[in-house]
Amino acid sequence: MKIAVLPGDGIGPEIIKEARKVLEVLQKEGLAITLEEAPLGGAAYDQYGSPYPEVTQKLAHEADAVLLGAVGGPAYDDLDRPLRPERGLLAIRKDLNLFANLRPAILYPELANASTLKSEVVSGLDIMIVRELTGDIYFGQPRGIRVNASGEREGFNTMLYAESEVRRIAHVAFGIAMKRNKKLCSVDKANVLETTEFWKEIMIDVAKEYPEVTLSHMYVDNAAMQLVRNPKQFDVMVTGNIFGDILSDEASMLTGSIGMLPSASLDANNKGLYEPSHGSAPDIAGKNLANPLATILSVAMMMRYSFNLEAVAQRIENAVKKVLADGLRTADIFEAGSTKVSCSEMGDAVVAAL
Amino acid sequence: MKIAVLPGDGIGPEIIKEARKVLEVLQKEGLAITLEEAPLGGAAYDQYGSPYPEVTQKLAHEADAVLLGAVGGPAYDDLDRPLRPERGLLAIRKDLNLFANLRPAILYPELANASTLKSEVVSGLDIMIVRELTGDIYFGQPRGIRVNASGEREGFNTMLYAESEVRRIAHVAFGIAMKRNKKLCSVDKANVLETTEFWKEIMIDVAKEYPEVTLSHMYVDNAAMQLVRNPKQFDVMVTGNIFGDILSDEASMLTGSIGMLPSASLDANNKGLYEPSHGSAPDIAGKNLANPLATILSVAMMMRYSFNLEAVAQRIENAVKKVLADGLRTADIFEAGSTKVSCSEMGDAVVAAL
Ligand SMILES: CC(C)[C@H](C(=O)O)[C@@H](O)C(=O)O
Ligand SMILES: CC(C)[C@H](C(=O)O)[C@@H](O)C(=O)O
Repeated sequence: MKIAVLPGDGIGPEIIKEARKVLEVLQKEGLAITLEEAPLGGAAYDQYGSPYPEVTQKLAHEADAVLLGAVGGPAYDDLDRPLRPERGLLAIRKDLNLFANLRPAILYPELANASTLKSEVVSGLDIMIVRELTGDIYFGQPRGIRVNASGEREGFNTMLYAESEVRRIAHVAFGIAMKRNKKLCSVDKANVLETTEFWKEIMIDVAKEYPEVTLSHMYVDNAAMQLVRNPKQFDVMVTGNIFGDILSDEASMLTGSIGMLPSASLDANNKGLYEPSHGSAPDIAGKNLANPLATILSVAMMMRYSFNLEAVAQRIENAVKKVLADGLRTADIFEAGSTKVSCSEMGDAVVAAL
Repeated sequence: MKIAVLPGDGIGPEIIKEARKVLEVLQKEGLAITLEEAPLGGAAYDQYGSPYPEVTQKLAHEADAVLLGAVGGPAYDDLDRPLRPERGLLAIRKDLNLFANLRPAILYPELANASTLKSEVVSGLDIMIVRELTGDIYFGQPRGIRVNASGEREGFNTMLYAESEVRRIAHVAFGIAMKRNKKLCSVDKANVLETTEFWKEIMIDVAKEYPEVTLSHMYVDNAAMQLVRNPKQFDVMVTGNIFGDILSDEASMLTGSIGMLPSASLDANNKGLYEPSHGSAPDIAGKNLANPLATILSVAMMMRYSFNLEAVAQRIENAVKKVLADGLRTADIFEAGSTKVSCSEMGDAVVAAL
C-alpha cells in the first residue's frame, strides 16, 4: 500500500514528521506500506509554480491514501487566486473525487477544561459530521465577477447538487450512522433554497434503504444554534459543502481542542485523504510547538477507512489517549499541572505508547 | 407616525399584545403614533390564502414602521412552497427593501447563567451583527430544480451581490461601528467564492470613507469558530444574507437567552421592520408562557432607528433591565431563586417599570 505524504505549509512539515514516526513503526513491524512525499499548496507553488503540480497529481493518483499536513500562509496572500495554496487543496479533493469528508468532534475527558462551554454541556461529546466535499457552491458553474445588464458589477456563484451527488453522500452518512447510534441529522435550508429542498427530498428517499436509522432534518441556522445550546443531541450530521465547512468548524471548536481533531476525505472506493482539522498556523511554524495529535489521529482514520485495519486504528487512538492520560500536553492544550512537551516530544511519546 | 402591527403565528399574538401595552403607554403620554393590525404568514394564509396578502402589503407601505411577532408553525408544513408562512416574511423584507438587518447579541448580567458558555467567555458580551437581508442566494436568479444536460435532476441556486447592494450595507455597518467601538469585522469566504471576494473588495473601498474604523476580514468558517472560542473579540460584524442567517443565530444562542433578543430590518430611509430574533414557538403558543421581552426590546429599536427617539428607546430598555433586576423571569429564562411570571405578567411589569 502506497501512502502519498504531503507536508504542505506552515506547521505542516513538523506535524507530518511526527505522524511519519507512527507510520514507520507500523512499517518496521511488517505492515506493507511505502511512503512517498510531494509538495502541495504554497510549498508546491514555491517549487513548481502551481499549488497542485503534476508531480503531486501523479503521486496522488498512484497512492492508496494521502496524508496531508496543512496548506496556506501569509506569504501567499498576494498571489493570484488560482495560484493560492487553498486552491491546491480544493484541486486535489476534486481530482481524487473525495466527496465524503468525515470530521469528528470529540471531547477528550482529559481536555474537558479546554472547552469554552460548560462541562455538563460538552462532557462526552462525540459527533461525526459528514460533509459533502466536491459539489455545492464550491464548484458550481457559472461563477465569477461580471458587469450585469444594468452596467453594474456583480459577484456571483452557483449552488448546485445533482441527484447522484446527494445519493452517494447520503449512503456514506447512513452507513456511518448504522455503525454508531443510528441517528442521522441532515442539515439544510429547505425553507429558502431549492438546492437543499432537493437535498432533503433525496435524503428522505435514501432513508428507505436504512429503516433502522432515524433521520431528522434541521435548518442550518438552527443547527448553528443547537450546536451551542445542546451539542450532545447530535450523533451523525450530514450536510453540503458550504454548510459543512461552517458547522464542522463550529463543532470542532466546541471541544476547545481543534489541535486534536483529525479528518478523512473519501472517494467511492475508500481511497482517502487524511488531514488534521486545524490549519497551517503560520505564527508557530518552525518552532516545534505544534500539536501533532490531530495528524497522528488522521493516520488512525486512514487505517480504519482506507486500509480496513480497525485494530491498528484503535491502537493508535489508544496510544494518544495514553499520552494524554500521562499528562503530556503541547502548548495549545497545556494547563497547570500537566507536562508541557514540544511537537517532536509528543510524537515520540505516542510512538513509545503504541 | 403609523405603526403596522403584524402579530403573525404561534406565540406571535401573545408577545405582540404585551409590546402593544408599551406602545399604548407612549401613546397616552402624547407620542403621536397610531397602531393598525394586519396578518402575515400562516394567519394571513388562513384568512386570505396568501402569506403576504394585499391588505398587509398596503398597510406595510403606508406605515412608518412595522412591528412583527413571528411566523410559521407545523400546521403550514404541507403547504406549497409559495404559500408557506416564511414566504410572507421573505416577501415583506423584499417588498419594503429592508436590506439592513441588525441583530444584537447581548448578554444580560442577570441572565449570565443561561449561557452554555463559561461565564468568563461571555460576560459583558455585546455584539451587533449587520446582515444584508434582500440579496444573496436568498433572492438570486436563476434557481430551481431541473433536469440537467446528462438527464439527471439537480437543485440549484444563485449567490449574487451587485456593487450597490454591498455598498449600502457597508455604509450601514460602518455607520454603526462609528457609534460603537469603531471596530468592524466583515465575514466572507473570499478564498472560495467570487461573490464574497467581490464583497470584500467593496468593503475595503467603502472603508476609505471611514478612516476611524478598523476593518478586519474573517472567513465564515473561522467566524463560526471564533464566536465559540472568544466571542468578545467582536464588536460589529457585517456579512451577507445566508452567512448572516447562520452566524446571527449562533451568536444569539451564545447568550443563552434568545427570548431576550430583538432585531431591526431597515430600508435606506430608516423605515424598518422590528421583530424578536426567536421564532413562533408553536409548542408553547396560546399558553401565556412566552417571553415578550425580545418583542418589547424590538419596540425600543423601533424608537431608536425609525423614530430617532433615543431617550424613549433607552427608557424601554431600562424598564426591561429593571424587571430583570427585580427577579422576574418567564419560563425560558427561569432559574431557582427568581420569580416565575407569565407572558402577560411580564408585559405588565415592564409597563409599570417604564
Ligand atoms: C481552505 C479552505 C478552502 C477549506 C474549505 O473551505 O473547504 C477549509 O476551510 C476546510 O474546511 O478544509
Ligand atoms: C424563516 C427564515 C426564512 C428566516 C431567514 O432565513 O431569513 C429566518 O431564519 C430569519 O433569520 O429571520
